[in-house]
Amino acid sequence: MYLMRVGAAGAEKPAVRVDETSYVDVSDLAGDFDEKFFGSGGLARLAGPVAERIAAGEVRPFAGQRIGAPIARPHQILCIGLNFSDHAAETGQSVPAEPILFTKSPNTLVGPYDDVRIPRGATKTDWEVELGIVIGTRTSYLDSPADAAAVIAGYVLVNDVSERAFQMERGGQWSKGKSAETFNPAGPWLATPDEIPDVRDLGMWLDVNGVRRQTGSTKTMVFDPYAIVHHLSQFMVLEPGDLINTGTPPGVGMGHRPPIWLKPGDVMELGIDRLGVARQQVVGPR
Amino acid sequence: MYLMRVGAAGAEKPAVRVDETSYVDVSDLAGDFDEKFFGSGGLARLAGPVAERIAAGEVRPFAGQRIGAPIARPHQILCIGLNFSDHAAETGQSVPAEPILFTKSPNTLVGPYDDVRIPRGATKTDWEVELGIVIGTRTSYLDSPADAAAVIAGYVLVNDVSERAFQMERGGQWSKGKSAETFNPAGPWLATPDEIPDVRDLGMWLDVNGVRRQTGSTKTMVFDPYAIVHHLSQFMVLEPGDLINTGTPPGVGMGHRPPIWLKPGDVMELGIDRLGVARQQVVGPR
Repeated sequence: MYLMRVGAAGAEKPAVRVDETSYVDVSDLAGDFDEKFFGSGGLARLAGPVAERIAAGEVRPFAGQRIGAPIARPHQILCIGLNFSDHAAETGQSVPAEPILFTKSPNTLVGPYDDVRIPRGATKTDWEVELGIVIGTRTSYLDSPADAAAVIAGYVLVNDVSERAFQMERGGQWSKGKSAETFNPAGPWLATPDEIPDVRDLGMWLDVNGVRRQTGSTKTMVFDPYAIVHHLSQFMVLEPGDLINTGTPPGVGMGHRPPIWLKPGDVMELGIDRLGVARQQVVGPR
Repeated sequence: MYLMRVGAAGAEKPAVRVDETSYVDVSDLAGDFDEKFFGSGGLARLAGPVAERIAAGEVRPFAGQRIGAPIARPHQILCIGLNFSDHAAETGQSVPAEPILFTKSPNTLVGPYDDVRIPRGATKTDWEVELGIVIGTRTSYLDSPADAAAVIAGYVLVNDVSERAFQMERGGQWSKGKSAETFNPAGPWLATPDEIPDVRDLGMWLDVNGVRRQTGSTKTMVFDPYAIVHHLSQFMVLEPGDLINTGTPPGVGMGHRPPIWLKPGDVMELGIDRLGVARQQVVGPR
């Protein structure tokens, strides 16, 4: 199943994707794809009614409507740093012995085709295609990575937009460079795990202005999604609907010599196998 | 005005404190003290009806009811590190040139008299009495620290409980050592700014098992509350109800020689002028 949210920002309606052009509205079955929905077994309640509606032809065309992030603003956006050995190398840092955790402000979440706004005073705004994990069940102290599969609601394509000067040069921790408005485009859809043959073997890519900048695969992750969820569950309680950005493959702007930074008018296109394609235009500060 | 939340965990009702023994229930005026309440000017709507109810004798006794955190789970708990020059010195770190930002999982928020639970695998659990700022208005790009006063809903006493091994020895960023369940007791009340003669001159203290461990004053903050809110607003959008822990004065367990760590059965008592006194018992891992 592929969950989507369709409609104007702040007024998105929950939907299940049928194909490239149509969806089933599930507003009456799910208030929103949020903590309450995932935490109350909402996913399991969708499958039957959605199949019936498709059989009955109760589908609607996307027809130019805005696509929102496929989940509501989560309790947390957790991020794993330097999780691809070749990306760690390009930033001049060593591969971490344990997952590096940092956070993004949850209100950075926007839709997959929304504009990305460069913050005021920014000089080093950068892209990061990432696999996002959405938590399905309130979780702490998992016994093993193998237990993580049961608490994952699905996966989503994310752009973990970053301002490197704010991240690296403004006071020690990374959150300052990760939390600007519009810095976490996600979607177009959340794919439930049954739609993904092997989450540890998904191709990833990102283009800027039509030039391929990032190419990678979840195969080269230092810590795979199950290891990450297991690890984080030892330190905090993960809530249903929480989003975990699992790190980026090589090719970020910071990794180029000389580095390449985003500027107004640039267009990022990015994709992950099974998780669709997103496209964001960069705009200047407000 | 002093906001409180009274009742069992997860079922707290919003209230306004009258005195040590009684409060006015405002459930009908405020769904909860949350983003929607603060963001819709809820504070301004309370004053008149609360005065009428007090005049009419419509007050209720606390009478042994649980006191919750005075705000609902916020969008973010932001924290400022090393914000007292003498605390920075005791940790062996230098005074920061800009506020150091890190975050805590918002679901760490508990009431002022709730137990603090040591996480599994912890070896260096520590206390931190702190002044918490609650944001009242959606805020970004403040022009100056002077503009910050208008977007602050109030102040609250916080214990920024920390696991130093998780914070310092498990992967670079601090969030891992700040986000365990029960790690952010807050309250007993939120004091609106008009109740505080000078937020830059409030005494602070914390006892463990009756022994005074922390003594300080907001006078020795490196960055005062207005400077902090102004600074953070340059990097992210602050939401109504967001909580900002502004750093701790000297005397944390880590600062003692040899260091002192919390163990099950310990009792922490802490207070800040005008913000009341809190008391938490430490319990072992679940």
